[in-house]
Amino acid sequence: MDDVVKTSTEAQRQEFYGRLATQNLAPLWEVLRGLLPSEPRSKAVPHRWVYDDLRPLLLESGSLLTAQEAERRVLVLENPALKGMSRATATMYAGIQLIMPGETAPAHRHSPSALRFMLEGEGAITVVGGERTTMRRGDFVITPSWAWHDHGNEGTQPCAWLDGLDLPLVQFLEASFNEHYNDDRQSLTRPEGDSLARFGSGMLPLNTTSRYGLTTPIFNYPFARTRAALVAAAAGEALDPHEAVTLRYANPIDGGWTMPTIAAWMMFVPAGFETRPMRSTDGQVMALAEGALTAHVGDKRYDLAESDVAVAPGWTWRSYRAEKDSFLFCFSDRVAHEKLGLYREQRGA
Amino acid sequence: MDDVVKTSTEAQRQEFYGRLATQNLAPLWEVLRGLLPSEPRSKAVPHRWVYDDLRPLLLESGSLLTAQEAERRVLVLENPALKGMSRATATMYAGIQLIMPGETAPAHRHSPSALRFMLEGEGAITVVGGERTTMRRGDFVITPSWAWHDHGNEGTQPCAWLDGLDLPLVQFLEASFNEHYNDDRQSLTRPEGDSLARFGSGMLPLNTTSRYGLTTPIFNYPFARTRAALVAAAAGEALDPHEAVTLRYANPIDGGWTMPTIAAWMMFVPAGFETRPMRSTDGQVMALAEGALTAHVGDKRYDLAESDVAVAPGWTWRSYRAEKDSFLFCFSDRVAHEKLGLYREQRGA
Amino acid sequence: MDDVVKTSTEAQRQEFYGRLATQNLAPLWEVLRGLLPSEPRSKAVPHRWVYDDLRPLLLESGSLLTAQEAERRVLVLENPALKGMSRATATMYAGIQLIMPGETAPAHRHSPSALRFMLEGEGAITVVGGERTTMRRGDFVITPSWAWHDHGNEGTQPCAWLDGLDLPLVQFLEASFNEHYNDDRQSLTRPEGDSLARFGSGMLPLNTTSRYGLTTPIFNYPFARTRAALVAAAAGEALDPHEAVTLRYANPIDGGWTMPTIAAWMMFVPAGFETRPMRSTDGQVMALAEGALTAHVGDKRYDLAESDVAVAPGWTWRSYRAEKDSFLFCFSDRVAHEKLGLYREQRGA
Amino acid sequence: MDDVVKTSTEAQRQEFYGRLATQNLAPLWEVLRGLLPSEPRSKAVPHRWVYDDLRPLLLESGSLLTAQEAERRVLVLENPALKGMSRATATMYAGIQLIMPGETAPAHRHSPSALRFMLEGEGAITVVGGERTTMRRGDFVITPSWAWHDHGNEGTQPCAWLDGLDLPLVQFLEASFNEHYNDDRQSLTRPEGDSLARFGSGMLPLNTTSRYGLTTPIFNYPFARTRAALVAAAAGEALDPHEAVTLRYANPIDGGWTMPTIAAWMMFVPAGFETRPMRSTDGQVMALAEGALTAHVGDKRYDLAESDVAVAPGWTWRSYRAEKDSFLFCFSDRVAHEKLGLYREQRGA
Repeated sequence: MDDVVKTSTEAQRQEFYGRLATQNLAPLWEVLRGLLPSEPRSKAVPHRWVYDDLRPLLLESGSLLTAQEAERRVLVLENPALKGMSRATATMYAGIQLIMPGETAPAHRHSPSALRFMLEGEGAITVVGGERTTMRRGDFVITPSWAWHDHGNEGTQPCAWLDGLDLPLVQFLEASFNEHYNDDRQSLTRPEGDSLARFGSGMLPLNTTSRYGLTTPIFNYPFARTRAALVAAAAGEALDPHEAVTLRYANPIDGGWTMPTIAAWMMFVPAGFETRPMRSTDGQVMALAEGALTAHVGDKRYDLAESDVAVAPGWTWRSYRAEKDSFLFCFSDRVAHEKLGLYREQRGA
Repeated sequence: MDDVVKTSTEAQRQEFYGRLATQNLAPLWEVLRGLLPSEPRSKAVPHRWVYDDLRPLLLESGSLLTAQEAERRVLVLENPALKGMSRATATMYAGIQLIMPGETAPAHRHSPSALRFMLEGEGAITVVGGERTTMRRGDFVITPSWAWHDHGNEGTQPCAWLDGLDLPLVQFLEASFNEHYNDDRQSLTRPEGDSLARFGSGMLPLNTTSRYGLTTPIFNYPFARTRAALVAAAAGEALDPHEAVTLRYANPIDGGWTMPTIAAWMMFVPAGFETRPMRSTDGQVMALAEGALTAHVGDKRYDLAESDVAVAPGWTWRSYRAEKDSFLFCFSDRVAHEKLGLYREQRGA
Repeated sequence: MDDVVKTSTEAQRQEFYGRLATQNLAPLWEVLRGLLPSEPRSKAVPHRWVYDDLRPLLLESGSLLTAQEAERRVLVLENPALKGMSRATATMYAGIQLIMPGETAPAHRHSPSALRFMLEGEGAITVVGGERTTMRRGDFVITPSWAWHDHGNEGTQPCAWLDGLDLPLVQFLEASFNEHYNDDRQSLTRPEGDSLARFGSGMLPLNTTSRYGLTTPIFNYPFARTRAALVAAAAGEALDPHEAVTLRYANPIDGGWTMPTIAAWMMFVPAGFETRPMRSTDGQVMALAEGALTAHVGDKRYDLAESDVAVAPGWTWRSYRAEKDSFLFCFSDRVAHEKLGLYREQRGA
Repeated sequence: MDDVVKTSTEAQRQEFYGRLATQNLAPLWEVLRGLLPSEPRSKAVPHRWVYDDLRPLLLESGSLLTAQEAERRVLVLENPALKGMSRATATMYAGIQLIMPGETAPAHRHSPSALRFMLEGEGAITVVGGERTTMRRGDFVITPSWAWHDHGNEGTQPCAWLDGLDLPLVQFLEASFNEHYNDDRQSLTRPEGDSLARFGSGMLPLNTTSRYGLTTPIFNYPFARTRAALVAAAAGEALDPHEAVTLRYANPIDGGWTMPTIAAWMMFVPAGFETRPMRSTDGQVMALAEGALTAHVGDKRYDLAESDVAVAPGWTWRSYRAEKDSFLFCFSDRVAHEKLGLYREQRGA
């Protein structure tokens, strides 16, 4: 085909495309390749937040406005490649929440699910469905989709935790509902520890229905128990080359993940162990609960200290090496990938 | 608080936010309200494509390039509010595909799931996993996630169908994989009708595992059978005020939806019947298979003729009135909403 | 140990056992071996009933008493090793039911589940849950646990079918409830064919709950459709050496067996094909729907003609050779074995 | 009908029945009423074994033969109405097993499932799948279907526990397999506590598959934890009028019962509380772990002391009154009734 003809054809096509556009039609063949890449390329990039660097800013926000004013006083962890979008990964929101002694983060509920991973301070409490729980360092706390929840600080120190929410996913699905409670704090209708006793002791009520739809009825998985389980599990079997010892937080009612949209787990990497690289389609947020760990994510290397937070975007190679016995908390959209038939992983040599 | 102080505070905040930004941090309290609306407001708008209007453009595209050149010769149905994004609703892609006599749309596979709803012509075939099926008007055909598929036209007329894919959802989840087959057409390894016989006759193989992961092993649900079922069902029970008679395409292996990401169903509205308004969180694409039907979507009214396509965005009121006995094919992201615990519906008076 | 001591010990033991017995205690070690055999030995034996031999007796019963008098006019097929126990296998009841023109087998319901496999005559009907179905030769009809059901003969010939019930199993579990309807016949509340249309066309209602608990909502699986599926399936894949082509009747709501206690399936053995021996823990009842088939069961050989019935006890080798294209209907307690984690099978060379 | 005719008819029938019998046929109408009672009447009767009465006999058996000789040294608890059948209820076996210091009950495996509820002594151990567990009073220990298991006593006192097995059920289903290990004791391949840590801490391995088919991977549910859960649960909600506070032992992998054939749970009845009568189709065996409890079963009254065992046959009214805070361990065939669609319960006023 000579150049003149080509140009003419191209002009014809553009004219045709213009007529299509007036009818809200578009030519697939011009965009197909972009719509169907041979494999995923995440819009997010690897990143790490050093807790000691962000902590002064967090405390400064504490003097800037009250928790009440803010509704939630949180510094959003924004992925450098997704500025202004309130996203840590392509689908997940993360932030660091601060609550000062005596403050209350007022009660509300929303269809997005939220998790809290406790980083600092004594005396923080969360109330879910009329039951309060005291949040200790390393505890994994859930505020289920559409469950009333509020937070408080009954101690004498600032308290801070990592927030994880499925906000970008729920917004994308256009299914975000939100409601404010008629008071700052819920009244307590059950004693502290009721959920953990009733659902987290290897027993279940006779007629089991979850209090929170597809979400686990346990809303605080204490670090003390999780840590002990990981250490015991490490003694019982050889370490997995890619995952060292990983246990996922589980819903006792069906053995699935704890939330329908957010998967959460903890990895124990014993001092000196180094995992081989692997990658998976889910985008992960991780926080070091204890120890000292070097994470390789894509071509980045992060030496993580306790409470540091990092992001491994989807389909990006990651591996870990522990300097001390290390406990790494992680969450991602893996459960959504699995339920929708889209989860894949690849294990490197 | 007087104005000077306010200004000062505001200035302080902006200065603080600037420092936050350098650390890839952002103040949640400035965006929280936008992130948590009290109820969904879809980015998509209601729209309708008149088949008789787009058909000439479709045929024109047939002379512009071959199916082979295009890989898939499709006019994308773009939601007017989502120009350039290849989306009919917030999460779903829709298009009208044309295949001319003797043409082949070459074999490939991808992690996004696809459906075809046959609109026009005789002689179109689709091959999935080595089995071919002949597509007749009103048939609902599935090309499952990661299954090899190609299309052909063995007849003498142009053939056209509605394509539905979960492309925007899979892209958002960053889980899109794609692969080309080493030939234009798959070789056939099973006789036509095998899947329907083996899985669609009320029977199942002794050791049931789906050929296609979470997707139904049946890949053509013939209109003749669906239509007869709807007419019989209408005789057996009073019409539902909101859904007239609606049956969903089902996966015989677990009774669930046919695909893990796309829900599909057909509604039969007898002549003269009018449904009451309802809305749900999923965004819907509909095509009239047979009859004449007026659809009210939000504040729009669409008089649908056969093969017309319309969109009802999520959480938008919709109702229908049939001028003739009408069979309306619909698909949406409802299955994803359900699996992720996000589906809601509301039924009006 | 010399004989005197042995005797003395034996006497001591017997005296001890006597004292135990007064306390309703017994020594396990005396019976353990019998309680825990190394593999199952069925109490049932292989057997075959020749339809042409029992038919005259069946018709004779028709003149002896009415269906109304009998409630159900059935000749029970008693396993020769289980006389007087109304059992064909260790856990399953089977019988041949006769209903004469104009007769009614009055409405009742019971917790045991029942199946009917139509053998002879035109005009028999069964009513389940207010819907009637016409029973044709080879049709597989279900009267679910605790569903009202009655039978009639609206034709001009005697009609006969094979009954299969889980009676021995339900009696053993002491869970047998029974109730009589306040009239001979139920009133009809749904048109004939409603269940098959609504649940058996590849579609399902939007909000699926079975009408009958754990039992399929389809209550007639027509032979015409089953036969066609088997023939098509035989063309699509190589014959299985042990099972030729076997499809099981399935519950569309969950893809499981049709009843919670009775598994049912049909095997198609093409003329000339011979299966290799296999055995499984379930005890099977089989009836030849069409063809001519030689069954080897244990050390017995049965040349089955149409409507002949045979029994293969649990863990007994069985194999088949077809003289003509043969369709063999089977039912067993396999579903109970599977659900209780007890099913095993072994495939011979 | 006059008497002569009646006699004649009766004679005719008997003659006919005789001819039927030669063909292994029987008239259903003569036995139908017996086969289909209006509601269950258990063959078992209520009964109670006083632990202090059977204990001397148990210890006497300890001097009569070794655990090795006996394979399992157990006094079978025989229901008074089912003498010689090794059954406590219609479907369940129960016994009291004794193991003396230094003894071993040699390793074997069988398809029947077994539970152990620890009654007396320190130092008993059970090994399952290469992992040992120390059995303390009130612990609920499982030896899953087809898992290798052996028992030992490493302490200085006699140890005794309640055995519960599904033997009658598995025998009835003719699915009983048994195999001896090639040594008395299994070698240990995992540290003690591995299962409980890995599966019983609210966490699960990433890729969950049970080590034991349909049975829970946890094989010791410690009383300390169960008791604490019950006490906490009692504080959190009003007592149920019929069930006080009842928690069932659960399989963390699916939230179901711990075994596919035997349901087990513990009821906490606080001092002074009296439950209202209820009945259910399952036949129950109960043992008092702690406290003092009066059980009414049918028309019997049993004042239970610690370690006493009682039986409540299926569909028999039962109610409880606690003299002291009481913890009642129970097991039954409820899980089989539920899976087979046969479970029913009735709650009295």
